[in-house]
Amino acid sequence: MKFSTQDLTYIKRCFELADKGRGFVSPNPFVGTVIVKDGSIIGEGWHKNFGGAHAEVIAVESSNEEIKGATLYCNLEPCCHFNKQTPPCVPLIISKEISRVVISNLDPNPNVNGNGVKQLRKAGIRVDTGILEDEGKEVNKFYFKYVIEKVPYITIKIAQSIDGKISADKDVQTWLTGEDSVKYVHQLRDRYDAVLVGANTIKVDDPRLTVREVKGRDPIRIIIDGDLSVSPDSNIIKLTGDEKTWIFTSENSHQEKIEQFEKLGIKIFQLPADKKKLDLDGILKELGKESITSLLVEGGRQIFSQFISQELFDEIVILQSPKILGKGISAFETNGIKKLKIKKTERLGEDLKIVLVDRQ
Amino acid sequence: MKFSTQDLTYIKRCFELADKGRGFVSPNPFVGTVIVKDGSIIGEGWHKNFGGAHAEVIAVESSNEEIKGATLYCNLEPCCHFNKQTPPCVPLIISKEISRVVISNLDPNPNVNGNGVKQLRKAGIRVDTGILEDEGKEVNKFYFKYVIEKVPYITIKIAQSIDGKISADKDVQTWLTGEDSVKYVHQLRDRYDAVLVGANTIKVDDPRLTVREVKGRDPIRIIIDGDLSVSPDSNIIKLTGDEKTWIFTSENSHQEKIEQFEKLGIKIFQLPADKKKLDLDGILKELGKESITSLLVEGGRQIFSQFISQELFDEIVILQSPKILGKGISAFETNGIKKLKIKKTERLGEDLKIVLVDRQ
Repeated sequence: MKFSTQDLTYIKRCFELADKGRGFVSPNPFVGTVIVKDGSIIGEGWHKNFGGAHAEVIAVESSNEEIKGATLYCNLEPCCHFNKQTPPCVPLIISKEISRVVISNLDPNPNVNGNGVKQLRKAGIRVDTGILEDEGKEVNKFYFKYVIEKVPYITIKIAQSIDGKISADKDVQTWLTGEDSVKYVHQLRDRYDAVLVGANTIKVDDPRLTVREVKGRDPIRIIIDGDLSVSPDSNIIKLTGDEKTWIFTSENSHQEKIEQFEKLGIKIFQLPADKKKLDLDGILKELGKESITSLLVEGGRQIFSQFISQELFDEIVILQSPKILGKGISAFETNGIKKLKIKKTERLGEDLKIVLVDRQ
Repeated sequence: MKFSTQDLTYIKRCFELADKGRGFVSPNPFVGTVIVKDGSIIGEGWHKNFGGAHAEVIAVESSNEEIKGATLYCNLEPCCHFNKQTPPCVPLIISKEISRVVISNLDPNPNVNGNGVKQLRKAGIRVDTGILEDEGKEVNKFYFKYVIEKVPYITIKIAQSIDGKISADKDVQTWLTGEDSVKYVHQLRDRYDAVLVGANTIKVDDPRLTVREVKGRDPIRIIIDGDLSVSPDSNIIKLTGDEKTWIFTSENSHQEKIEQFEKLGIKIFQLPADKKKLDLDGILKELGKESITSLLVEGGRQIFSQFISQELFDEIVILQSPKILGKGISAFETNGIKKLKIKKTERLGEDLKIVLVDRQ
């Protein structure tokens, strides 16, 4: 199928609109809709928050013109199922007598997955699918993973020196990257449902894991802390009030300390543990149940090593500093060679961002 | 000074022409010349081999038109001194009544360094200097270093995994990079006067260090081997006949083995050594005396560590493979943090090339 330049322009506008929902609609997908008639956009919308109106509905409502005979562009297949918070979009599109629908991706949700398109076609509407399919999947990479596997899309973020070190010595904080990389990390936090670190990172770096360098909303902050050893005086624990700090700990952790943390507004998850080491699969399933569709893993070495050796990642983002540390601690240690694929590189001020994905 | 679009076009052509001399003119600079009259190129030339005619002379001779009144473009200031193999170019330019000369860089050679320009101006010729000055310096970066410091321009080339390892274990050869990177390394060898490795790399990898994957000429192959422990059965030693293998060893090495190697056509340099460790500065000065203006350091770990910790490099080229080794040997170990600057990045097939230089 060949799409026209106009089709490409309008579907890209859908991607832009979809992106505005990022950070607010989880576990729903990012969806943008454009309605076009006689070569002009007569309606636009995007899915703004979980449980709120769908992009298609907002686009229809935004229009002051006669929609009959128009073309509707949408990055994701319109929904057709009822077991959710809002009525399905397909009947609305049919009732408005829209004549053509252009879609990037079918909705991988088993409740939809082609059925929306089928119903539209049955109603005599021309439906063209697959326009900028890869770009559409990139926009909704969190959703595509989550809706099938019920666990979050995982990005491991590592800031390292040219010689692959994350710090000059054990348990020492070493600043490697420049201003632009720091901003980028805050942008990432704004876009992910949750960020995750190990207890040792809290002890050594004492981070807040909030979004400060850019405008944005804070993600859920997750700490893996088998024996609940994090200090109540840590910056992250002192961030009370927003109920956004979650700690995963062993079922054997002291009840007293658990209660102390819970009083501070920390949410505690207790899991079975083998020698205080928590099972990552168990944590990810738990996060899935909590509607966390995307997870940014920020360290440290033990956490990186566990996620990478268990191949629990969708993307690794290396923030490559132009510094030489000469000696020190590597970001992770694993067994066996693993081949990845460089998906993207980008200069971030003095640093270099390298995005790696599975070789497939 | 503002230069016209035409000026930029013609000086870029000079860079292209200059580049054709690469690999053949050392220790001379790379020089290209274009002669332009009435908006057309009427003569072109480049310096083709050491001791041969200069680019300006070849350009003048290549022209069938009347040169009087033309503009001569040259990436490097024309020479004006006599203590060398060919007569100076400045008198030729004056005698041909060229009316304007456009130059990227003054010749840093203390015998020229502005004197060429002065003589041209004294003869009434308009001379404009500094066009694409940085690009010109990049073309002649080997020469700019060598002519002042009398030691070669040093590029350290490291192929490493995402986690900064060069091999999975000590004394084990690990193939990390893909086809395009291998080709690039052969291109580098073709462009450098010499390549250098330590004796351990010969033992573990048994490389030939020749140019095979691309069309080109072989560089001088230098081995640092304090106790002359390299086997006569090594591939590199068996490459007899071209007289291009040089070994730097201690003055205490066995005379018998030295003679054995010399019979095979190997050139042996004996230097004072502290516990069989040779002084790199001494080696570089010796290479300078041998007119080696550019040196590609190819490893291994001990050699990298020595060059980097003594800050004996102008450029580090990282060939970043998308593989994870998980554990293994780092490319080098040094003391203290060193800040570099990313000069350039480029995709080489599956790999990523990162060029680093001093922060300045």
